[in-house]
Amino acid sequence: MIGIFDSGLGGLTVAKEILDKLPNYKIIYFGDTARTPYGSKSAETITKYAIENTKFLLNKSAKIIVVACHTVSSVSMPALKSLFPEIPFFEVVTPSFKKALIITKNKKIGLIGTRTTVESGIYNLLFSQADPQIKLYSNPSPLLVPLIEEGWINKPETRKIIKKYLIPLKMKGIDTLILGCTHYPLIKKIIQEKAGKRIKLVDPSKEVAIQVKEFIEKNPNLKEKLDPNGEIEIYVSDITPNFKKIAQLFLNKKINLIKVNLE
Amino acid sequence: MIGIFDSGLGGLTVAKEILDKLPNYKIIYFGDTARTPYGSKSAETITKYAIENTKFLLNKSAKIIVVACHTVSSVSMPALKSLFPEIPFFEVVTPSFKKALIITKNKKIGLIGTRTTVESGIYNLLFSQADPQIKLYSNPSPLLVPLIEEGWINKPETRKIIKKYLIPLKMKGIDTLILGCTHYPLIKKIIQEKAGKRIKLVDPSKEVAIQVKEFIEKNPNLKEKLDPNGEIEIYVSDITPNFKKIAQLFLNKKINLIKVNLE
Repeated sequence: MIGIFDSGLGGLTVAKEILDKLPNYKIIYFGDTARTPYGSKSAETITKYAIENTKFLLNKSAKIIVVACHTVSSVSMPALKSLFPEIPFFEVVTPSFKKALIITKNKKIGLIGTRTTVESGIYNLLFSQADPQIKLYSNPSPLLVPLIEEGWINKPETRKIIKKYLIPLKMKGIDTLILGCTHYPLIKKIIQEKAGKRIKLVDPSKEVAIQVKEFIEKNPNLKEKLDPNGEIEIYVSDITPNFKKIAQLFLNKKINLIKVNLE
Repeated sequence: MIGIFDSGLGGLTVAKEILDKLPNYKIIYFGDTARTPYGSKSAETITKYAIENTKFLLNKSAKIIVVACHTVSSVSMPALKSLFPEIPFFEVVTPSFKKALIITKNKKIGLIGTRTTVESGIYNLLFSQADPQIKLYSNPSPLLVPLIEEGWINKPETRKIIKKYLIPLKMKGIDTLILGCTHYPLIKKIIQEKAGKRIKLVDPSKEVAIQVKEFIEKNPNLKEKLDPNGEIEIYVSDITPNFKKIAQLFLNKKINLIKVNLE
């Protein structure tokens, strides 16, 4: 069983990529819709929620955990790894950092994400350790999640707000842009359009799925423990009025939701 | 002690109106910033949180409880009143309904608010019982809370989105508009501008403060139990990076925050 969690629905873009690349394994997804969004909350509170979500997935027999949320990936990984040392954890920050490092030519990289992700400084730290010449320019883009969750994907207001968030990054001459939030692949087309052809996008949902696939293939012992049953079970902490519609938008197929109480 | 709670910061507009009208009583405010926003969550989850918030305020010696959140006011009052029968509760829906009933001339009333507030149908029920001739036109406006919490109060994107939300209501010829969310008084000027002079706004924060004042003045016993010490103590379930800035925007003065864990 591959366990995936996110603050809400954004992580379904990660689930979709993993399903595409590993169609033979069962996925358990947990979305903390009762407490979403995480992106504007404090690191302490986010880590508390991340631990509860991990415990839930482990109780459901998950053998590996994919943190499909940039905010959690940015602030909670040390705590998760020390509390659950035997569990292989994957998160979305490292693979997107690695990809950006490979594709940038002028060493000017842009980052958009929630306020907590951007302000955590995790990407700055990674890039400065890997190559001190790299310049990272970031802009918190907190309105994109609510716009996506409202389904305002093609509205002119959304296009204008995306443009506004990208202007300061474009002015710095970036050639690579990290989509630092698992919701953003849903508006990738508009982001690409507003960024222009010169800028290459890094989609962390894709990158983490590649990592998970490689890891499973290298670990035959783990392979045996995963349920060979290509399906997805989705659990949420709250079934909200808009949820089913949004979940279908993400996964592109009809899904069943099971509500659970974490507290 | 007057207890006030909200999902987050919006209820501070209510606290401010009560402080203005009753400057001699101590207010305890609780904002559930660890789980905000409520407006897109289910009625069941919202009621669970509302009960926890009420217990917190009662433990802090609150003698009356003001529910400064439209979403909770719309879906959780029966549960709160039956669980805490001795406590006088005030909420923001009834006073704004009453005010709208008084000021409408053409009996066409508009309502903007979160998805859960609008879809609860509480205003429809109240108006249809009071006067079957009244037509209520509503439009869920879920992006206004994130825009306000981002401090995008005077940005052109915010003005455009407000205009967009109001168009269908204006086309129905409403003469009264209920601001069905305690965040909205912060953008009242722009709403008035986009609605036009013909439409009168109902500000529930003001209306509930008037109700609370009248109630206290009519109940000398209660008056004695309230701490005659005109100050506000603000508790939150999470101190978020942006919180202090936003809280000051609402209350218009420097404030101290105390973090508490509800769970």
